[in-house]
Amino acid sequence: MQSYGIKALLEKGKDLLLQEVVVNGWVRSFRSNRFIALNDGSTINNIQVVVDFENFDESIIKQISTAASLQVKGEVVESEGAGQDIEIVAKEIKILGTAPSDDLKGTILQPKQHSLEILREQAHLRFRTNVFAATMRVRNALMFGIHKYFNENGFVYINTPIITGSDAEGAGEMFHITNLDMENLPKNEEGKVDYTQDFFGKSTNLTVSGQLEGETAAMGLGKIYTFGPTFRAENSNTSRHLAEFWMIEPEVAFFRLDQNMDLAEDFMKSVITYAMETCKDDLKFLAERFDKEQKQKPEAERSELGLIERLEYVLNNKFIRLTYTEAIDILKDSKPNKKGKFKYPIEGWGADLQSEHERYLVEKHFKTPVILFDYPAEIKAFYMRMNDDGKTVRAMDVLFPGIGEIIGGSEREERLEVLDEKMEKFGIDKEELWWYRDTRRFGSVPHSGFGLGLERLVLFVTGMGNIRDVIPFPRTPNNAEF
Amino acid sequence: MQSYGIKALLEKGKDLLLQEVVVNGWVRSFRSNRFIALNDGSTINNIQVVVDFENFDESIIKQISTAASLQVKGEVVESEGAGQDIEIVAKEIKILGTAPSDDLKGTILQPKQHSLEILREQAHLRFRTNVFAATMRVRNALMFGIHKYFNENGFVYINTPIITGSDAEGAGEMFHITNLDMENLPKNEEGKVDYTQDFFGKSTNLTVSGQLEGETAAMGLGKIYTFGPTFRAENSNTSRHLAEFWMIEPEVAFFRLDQNMDLAEDFMKSVITYAMETCKDDLKFLAERFDKEQKQKPEAERSELGLIERLEYVLNNKFIRLTYTEAIDILKDSKPNKKGKFKYPIEGWGADLQSEHERYLVEKHFKTPVILFDYPAEIKAFYMRMNDDGKTVRAMDVLFPGIGEIIGGSEREERLEVLDEKMEKFGIDKEELWWYRDTRRFGSVPHSGFGLGLERLVLFVTGMGNIRDVIPFPRTPNNAEF
Repeated sequence: MQSYGIKALLEKGKDLLLQEVVVNGWVRSFRSNRFIALNDGSTINNIQVVVDFENFDESIIKQISTAASLQVKGEVVESEGAGQDIEIVAKEIKILGTAPSDDLKGTILQPKQHSLEILREQAHLRFRTNVFAATMRVRNALMFGIHKYFNENGFVYINTPIITGSDAEGAGEMFHITNLDMENLPKNEEGKVDYTQDFFGKSTNLTVSGQLEGETAAMGLGKIYTFGPTFRAENSNTSRHLAEFWMIEPEVAFFRLDQNMDLAEDFMKSVITYAMETCKDDLKFLAERFDKEQKQKPEAERSELGLIERLEYVLNNKFIRLTYTEAIDILKDSKPNKKGKFKYPIEGWGADLQSEHERYLVEKHFKTPVILFDYPAEIKAFYMRMNDDGKTVRAMDVLFPGIGEIIGGSEREERLEVLDEKMEKFGIDKEELWWYRDTRRFGSVPHSGFGLGLERLVLFVTGMGNIRDVIPFPRTPNNAEF
Repeated sequence: MQSYGIKALLEKGKDLLLQEVVVNGWVRSFRSNRFIALNDGSTINNIQVVVDFENFDESIIKQISTAASLQVKGEVVESEGAGQDIEIVAKEIKILGTAPSDDLKGTILQPKQHSLEILREQAHLRFRTNVFAATMRVRNALMFGIHKYFNENGFVYINTPIITGSDAEGAGEMFHITNLDMENLPKNEEGKVDYTQDFFGKSTNLTVSGQLEGETAAMGLGKIYTFGPTFRAENSNTSRHLAEFWMIEPEVAFFRLDQNMDLAEDFMKSVITYAMETCKDDLKFLAERFDKEQKQKPEAERSELGLIERLEYVLNNKFIRLTYTEAIDILKDSKPNKKGKFKYPIEGWGADLQSEHERYLVEKHFKTPVILFDYPAEIKAFYMRMNDDGKTVRAMDVLFPGIGEIIGGSEREERLEVLDEKMEKFGIDKEELWWYRDTRRFGSVPHSGFGLGLERLVLFVTGMGNIRDVIPFPRTPNNAEF
């Protein structure tokens, strides 16, 4: 007798009519002592198992309850219910694990509506809810779509180090790593902590970005990408920040900024397309959730588009490319700026753009994703390539509806003498980054890359509102449970 | 004029005859002021660029030297050289970055033989060497092959947390993470470090395994896998240990141990097949390196098989499955045991197997990969499912030639009362693992999984001898450079 996952079973559908099959799963509901909705996590859809109670011991029937786990042997028959082609008439039912309803009290497995906040507190159980399981399957599709895109385009996946002795990039506050006895720290002659006795013989941190190491790899392998966890020890308790998140950073030798923009646009469209093609049912469910959530918002804050429409809008529009300077002109003359509606009014060139400005450009002005480029050197990182004007750098930010900046990147400064000048200006330690400078000493080449925060992308595609609901076990200030 | 990566250019080969193309790359060699071997990292093969020095300024010719970077425009013509179909006759050469030979002194970019140890010290430059670039491309293929296998088989990729508040599993020494001021640690009333003031409000560590969190995900999503960095703060300065390495951990609801073994075997064969199909040239190069290295070893230590043969031997043989008890009997009666050749003689049941025993079974006795299962409960982890004999657990180790244990896994203990007993016996804090216990309280199901260290697999497939040479920036005691 063939065993099937529920997704495969439903896909085969009527091809399996009258066959005997085995399925495993958890009970989502048990109606009228007769209809079990069984789910095994492979799909958001349940298979209906029909139980003729006369054929089973009462003790078995009693143990069939929400959240219990079963193995069912039975015959596939045509379903009379709406929305399903087939169902299974049970011949044998084995209770794998019981879930008495008294035990479920206080857990999110109880069959009623639970808030996303409560789900988060029981993160170990929320994989069994539709909303989180759907989000995880979409996240999975996005991750595979990313690997697939890079693989098909000749990129080499590079694992840059998580533990780093370098804290030079200054992308954010870092977590410290140590193997010293915290209750009894060894001190050196100056009375400071003696890191020479630590595991790595020096002070080490968790990485904030793999870019600099990624650049060294691109200088040999040509096209590379990193995809790994990165960390920020910043006390930001917002719906957009995590202390631990996953980042994707492609880096390409010989690419100038325009090719970098082409890559970013093609990459985003491919990955979103892949998720839409492979997660239809999950996205349909999430789109319905999104609609309901929008209706509860004040009208002014509602998304003009539904979830699927918003994704299609990104796929079907060419991303508008304009310089920071052009964007500032538009924003300065914009209605919200003139009417004092921006929290951070735009007074002139040089201002750092805030999320409100980015969203105005994308959602109101252009109504399409936007790539801004050529930012003032002062507000961007030291490694970005200086333009001939001496005041802007070849930075680019990709802005998305509902999200604002989703990708940040640049052409890198490949000229050693210009890089050195910038490092001095930004107070970056040249000695510490000797290896980074080395890549500009021997056959330096133009190159470009960008960074994408995975969870921001998952937020965009799933329509979820809080970043803690798109990663299995979120790490935030005062929270490292599980 | 079309721009090509060198891999794509060589693959198109004679289809491009007489076309004008653009290629970028680094000079590997420049012979007779006429023949440039150009490489861009996309393949181990170089494209030959022919320079007629009469057509170029002497200043350009002078800057063409090993490690310099160029952009070449030219015509594709048939090559008269051996081992190449085509070459490019240069029409324009742009020097992107020079590499004066004086500057290269002391670097691994100098055109001579460098030891792997020296390459490691210049890890930021070794991406430009054949041996390391080939290794990275094979590593990349293995990683993609892993994602592809799981994706095609319905597994959901789950990112388990890197920062963990739990240190209960006891898989190894952990690194401590903190955001406290190390020079001025806050103390509580008892005079101990006050972790309530730390970023997460408690003491946190770097993960040693995502398995326990992965199990919670499988309890909802059915089939999942983790693939991320894991850490060991162990002072092991060996060719087989890293403080930071990448681990793959599938976990499957409803799987018993025999299905877990089927999965492990099919998975390994698929992934290795994928790498062999997609990295032919790199593996050919690495196989030649492997042969040379073997010849330098004492005869007794040499591999009986070449690199490719060893891979094929894994693919073409069914993995032998036998119990720990059967293995002990074989080992006890074996020649090396009787002649006292084992460093750790096998005296009887209960002994932990060492690498020498595992390799004897694989390389001498069975001459095929081996899966050992049903180990003594005492020498395995608390979460492995107890057999009815009350003394063995449903553990499994997959043993490979030249490597020994490459996969370790088990069926998990799904019975709460048995798990609780084991936790008590092993001194595991039940309070701390409340969430792990929860998964056995509500619809518990049989489930199984295993762990594979990525770098061990890369060692096996590339034939490299030191684990530090198969990861971009190795972390080992006293070494967190870059």
